Amino acid sequence: MSSSKTVRKLQVVSPVPADIDIANSVEPLHISEIAQELNLSPNHYDLYGKYKAKVLLSVVDELEGSGDGYYVVVGGITPTPLGEGKSTTTVGICQALGAFLDKKVVTCIRQPSQGPTFGIKGGAAGGGYSQVIPMDEFNLHLTGDIHAITAANNLLAAAIDTRIFHESTQSDKALLNRLCPPNKEGKRSFSDIMFRRLKKLGISKTKPEDLTSQEVKKFARLDIDPDSITWRRVMDINDRFLRKITIGQGPEEKGMVRETAFDISVASEIMAVLALTISLADMRERLGNMVIGNSKSGEPITADDLGVGGALTVLMKDAINPTLMQTLEGTPVLVHAGPFANIAHGNSSIVADKIAVKLVGPGGFVVTEAGFGADIGTEKFMNIKCRYSGLTPQCAVIVATIRALKMHGGGPEVVAGKPLDRTYITENVGLVEAGCVNLARHVSNTKAYGVNVVVAVNMFATDSEAELNAVRNAALAAGAFDAVICTHHAHGGKGAVSNCYPLAFEVVKLGYAAESFIVDLGIAVQKACENVTQPLKFLYPLDISIKEKIEAIAKSYGASGVEYSDQAEKQIEMYSKQGFSTLPICMAKTQYSFSHIPSEKGAPSGFVLPIRDVRASIGAGFIFPLVGAMSTMPGLPTRPCFYDIDIDTTTGRVIGLS
Amino acid sequence: MSSSKTVRKLQVVSPVPADIDIANSVEPLHISEIAQELNLSPNHYDLYGKYKAKVLLSVVDELEGSGDGYYVVVGGITPTPLGEGKSTTTVGICQALGAFLDKKVVTCIRQPSQGPTFGIKGGAAGGGYSQVIPMDEFNLHLTGDIHAITAANNLLAAAIDTRIFHESTQSDKALLNRLCPPNKEGKRSFSDIMFRRLKKLGISKTKPEDLTSQEVKKFARLDIDPDSITWRRVMDINDRFLRKITIGQGPEEKGMVRETAFDISVASEIMAVLALTISLADMRERLGNMVIGNSKSGEPITADDLGVGGALTVLMKDAINPTLMQTLEGTPVLVHAGPFANIAHGNSSIVADKIAVKLVGPGGFVVTEAGFGADIGTEKFMNIKCRYSGLTPQCAVIVATIRALKMHGGGPEVVAGKPLDRTYITENVGLVEAGCVNLARHVSNTKAYGVNVVVAVNMFATDSEAELNAVRNAALAAGAFDAVICTHHAHGGKGAVSNCYPLAFEVVKLGYAAESFIVDLGIAVQKACENVTQPLKFLYPLDISIKEKIEAIAKSYGASGVEYSDQAEKQIEMYSKQGFSTLPICMAKTQYSFSHIPSEKGAPSGFVLPIRDVRASIGAGFIFPLVGAMSTMPGLPTRPCFYDIDIDTTTGRVIGLS
Repeated sequence: MSSSKTVRKLQVVSPVPADIDIANSVEPLHISEIAQELNLSPNHYDLYGKYKAKVLLSVVDELEGSGDGYYVVVGGITPTPLGEGKSTTTVGICQALGAFLDKKVVTCIRQPSQGPTFGIKGGAAGGGYSQVIPMDEFNLHLTGDIHAITAANNLLAAAIDTRIFHESTQSDKALLNRLCPPNKEGKRSFSDIMFRRLKKLGISKTKPEDLTSQEVKKFARLDIDPDSITWRRVMDINDRFLRKITIGQGPEEKGMVRETAFDISVASEIMAVLALTISLADMRERLGNMVIGNSKSGEPITADDLGVGGALTVLMKDAINPTLMQTLEGTPVLVHAGPFANIAHGNSSIVADKIAVKLVGPGGFVVTEAGFGADIGTEKFMNIKCRYSGLTPQCAVIVATIRALKMHGGGPEVVAGKPLDRTYITENVGLVEAGCVNLARHVSNTKAYGVNVVVAVNMFATDSEAELNAVRNAALAAGAFDAVICTHHAHGGKGAVSNCYPLAFEVVKLGYAAESFIVDLGIAVQKACENVTQPLKFLYPLDISIKEKIEAIAKSYGASGVEYSDQAEKQIEMYSKQGFSTLPICMAKTQYSFSHIPSEKGAPSGFVLPIRDVRASIGAGFIFPLVGAMSTMPGLPTRPCFYDIDIDTTTGRVIGLS
Repeated sequence: MSSSKTVRKLQVVSPVPADIDIANSVEPLHISEIAQELNLSPNHYDLYGKYKAKVLLSVVDELEGSGDGYYVVVGGITPTPLGEGKSTTTVGICQALGAFLDKKVVTCIRQPSQGPTFGIKGGAAGGGYSQVIPMDEFNLHLTGDIHAITAANNLLAAAIDTRIFHESTQSDKALLNRLCPPNKEGKRSFSDIMFRRLKKLGISKTKPEDLTSQEVKKFARLDIDPDSITWRRVMDINDRFLRKITIGQGPEEKGMVRETAFDISVASEIMAVLALTISLADMRERLGNMVIGNSKSGEPITADDLGVGGALTVLMKDAINPTLMQTLEGTPVLVHAGPFANIAHGNSSIVADKIAVKLVGPGGFVVTEAGFGADIGTEKFMNIKCRYSGLTPQCAVIVATIRALKMHGGGPEVVAGKPLDRTYITENVGLVEAGCVNLARHVSNTKAYGVNVVVAVNMFATDSEAELNAVRNAALAAGAFDAVICTHHAHGGKGAVSNCYPLAFEVVKLGYAAESFIVDLGIAVQKACENVTQPLKFLYPLDISIKEKIEAIAKSYGASGVEYSDQAEKQIEMYSKQGFSTLPICMAKTQYSFSHIPSEKGAPSGFVLPIRDVRASIGAGFIFPLVGAMSTMPGLPTRPCFYDIDIDTTTGRVIGLS
């Protein structure tokens, strides 16, 4: 059907086998073939094995003059803990557009965190017949970006504590002498990075010996207030015992103990920098500008003040290049930046999207994923990511499932690892209709950005026709451009393409028996992109106060107001005073409700949103309010996924990864 | 001079430029060219960018029947904190053998730790005209092996604390039910990894419901004694504030606080497993067998008891493949496993050496590096690594410098980052002669293994002819097969090849003016390999007691006896009782003296070696006594290397890495 050389015909089996079995049943193409289809030559990428390649950022410069393809973001309704198939749908749309509608297409998705892969959730390569392959390489290490983030994050953390320690034992003069050691000729000089701090301090002298004693103090003594430090160490492991720790208890650290914590690596500001940067030079500045806390006199202290911004960039220099992989049907995928739109920004990277829109060119499609529900994922996509990238989406997809809508309509709690209640596998149109208030709010919120909204109902075998029709009707009533039922999980790209009107014809044409609706998500997305009538509108302007911005977002959640803790008030005042109030807002909020209370399903309203604390990611470029109790370090259950994971030592194949 | 296609003629400049400038002055060959010279086809390796490739372990099986090349280990005398150029010499010998003597050669070196790269030491790619390139890729991330070790190590750590936590709140029955959850049909089963624990417990039942309540308790409750846990978290950062920490202080961890620590990643037992394993299947067993501590009744608890041995192997499955790189002169290098022979095993990997001896074949040379002084590096190479690999070295090189010998002769303290005392840059034959006691003991200790010892004097511009002759004489008197002065730092492979007798001829032939001796280390190594007369002899047999083995090693240091702390006595007794007494010994001892006291230079004797504690690396396969105060986590100085490191954002080149 497609003229593309790399497109692969899937032989689908019913019932759908385990994800890893499907992934292993397909021999991936050498990634150079995928690259060639995108007109990338070998000097445009670095191979990482046979099935992964890092696409070099220089591609953006080379293609600067060429036109952009369509830009589609995939969000979801408020999910159950099981996930509603957002990654699967993102992949499915692309398999439909690329492998069946013969469009140039690139899928942009986020690198999964290894924490959940070995914990509760398992991998994140999509599912069923809509997956990124090889799924073990996708889920493990990939090309080392998250490891680079962990290393850079923790180098900065070590630099902070060590600096405080050394300052505590040395005079200003001794500090300066150590910072500017004599060369072989006995001459002292500032290193390049020190001129950044000197400039910030308004000191234009170029030789250490010319500094007055007051200037020596200002330059050499960062005087970090330990209580103000917001920079934490990170690890890409679900290690709950690191949620609160005391460090510095060794005898050589002379009693300089301090309470701190580890976050999961994807919550690092450096991940946000990676997601939001646009070039190597820009990344260098952002990493250097990251604020780790304050001096005792209230001045923000940055990575460059600590002399480490350059080293952080060096650690991240390969991570800035997105990783090219492929779907089960041989369409290209760019994997970049990280998940967790609840406690982080949680979108795929600007760099990957920018490369992708140029590679597909006019008439082509880039489908990019925004984490969790549209209240957090798509909101951050629009107001943070698109604001920084300048890219304009034409279409936003909202993924819904009958299961999640029933939960929003009042169905019993859905718990990961426990069998689903009968409600979720038998017809109950009333519950679905009641739950559509959640979908409707996501649709109208998303439509307000000026994009066309397509609702994709990720169909399960137990869904009934009446239930599916109820969702379609509710979505259209809420203003969706279209609402389509899709079975890409069971059928791959075929499940997201071809129209059910007339159904019989399509079924014959596709050569397999449809157990259910086969509706055309691919065509709906294409039409939505071709029929945009409005410009992109942000939810809030940047030049209002931090509180006004928080309140604008809270209103979109349905909140009647916002309540700030004393700590939050203090931080907002400080960041405003420090000149950071013009940044966009990245809310840390549960993904399980529009509100801050995970159990409040549907479309809650009239609640007061509590802001427990406010942090700032100055390098990444946003203010980071913490809504209610949000953990930034997951834990492991009694029986983590790792019990099933092993290697077949004769074939080298990974077993049990899901 | 060489017929090899990949050999590159170096244009040397005097004085020798900065390491990074030399490294950047050479355009590396595409690594596939280096691979081709070794008769590796593209299905034998995975590319990681243009200049690195992972050589797949399957090569060992393919070449099983073919003959081995010569096997040379490079150790050193007791070093100064500046290092005596052991990596540089290792590279230099290979450049001499490969690029000038037209021998098939592979250099096997260890991946550097990123901690010291950003701390005091800088990179570890060799120096001057004897380097591995690209040196930034070598020093940063490489192909992710250490990151994989960090991830695996810390997944196991998280599994330990989480398991203790969950056991504390659940009944035996509840634990079993959680560990063996019902499938969709409601049936419970053991996962494959659980059968390992069942077998260890002598339980042959195959269904969870068949266990007696006593068996449920034995199986499901590991009952780990928190005070017995020897497994620590790791990080590849010099983070001194993690040397002693308290974890579990979050409210959700319900007061289950525990004191623990982070080590630097290369000290992880998983690094030792990587260095000592011989196959994927062997690595799976070793990782599963790692002992993390004891149950309250004194039974060793393993990674497989925690259900995580398979997942650890999956995380390490790519790390087991060594990384192919190149020297400045285009000879092949395999980089694998990690440094720190003081607090770890500190040798390059068995896997890399095994691949290398087959690739070079009979008449070819594999030169592998053993960390720090021969007292720890070469000793561990012989008694641990060769014992496990079955490979037999023919020649051991001992690298010496005039600088270090002067220190051993009574010269003033050498401190990193401070200018060298005049003693070290002016002639003082007496000090050199006095210091040769250190060299002599290393020579006789090493010769006792049955190999031919070649002393390589890594020459500096300030060394005098009389000083160099003194070393040569002392080395030969101590029983060295040969002793050669070499200038590979200043001249590349040319500095380690061609004979100074007649010097004039060689100088003309090589086409550059020799400022100093140019002596033939390459030929000396070749002759040493061709003239072995003895079989390999270990320092101790395995079937004596742990204490007897420790004492045999202590005697080689010059100690008159060994003193055990109560803790050490307790641990030795326990490990002996647990059946681990037949393992070889890996001493954690300072590299700065034969003894445990870093300031005791020369060849101290008559001291009593204090064993502070004894740990066991059961998966790696050794008992690990801690001699005196050995830190397993370095710190950062007031002005770490990172102040100089940055990126040129227009070219993408790394600046300031040394």
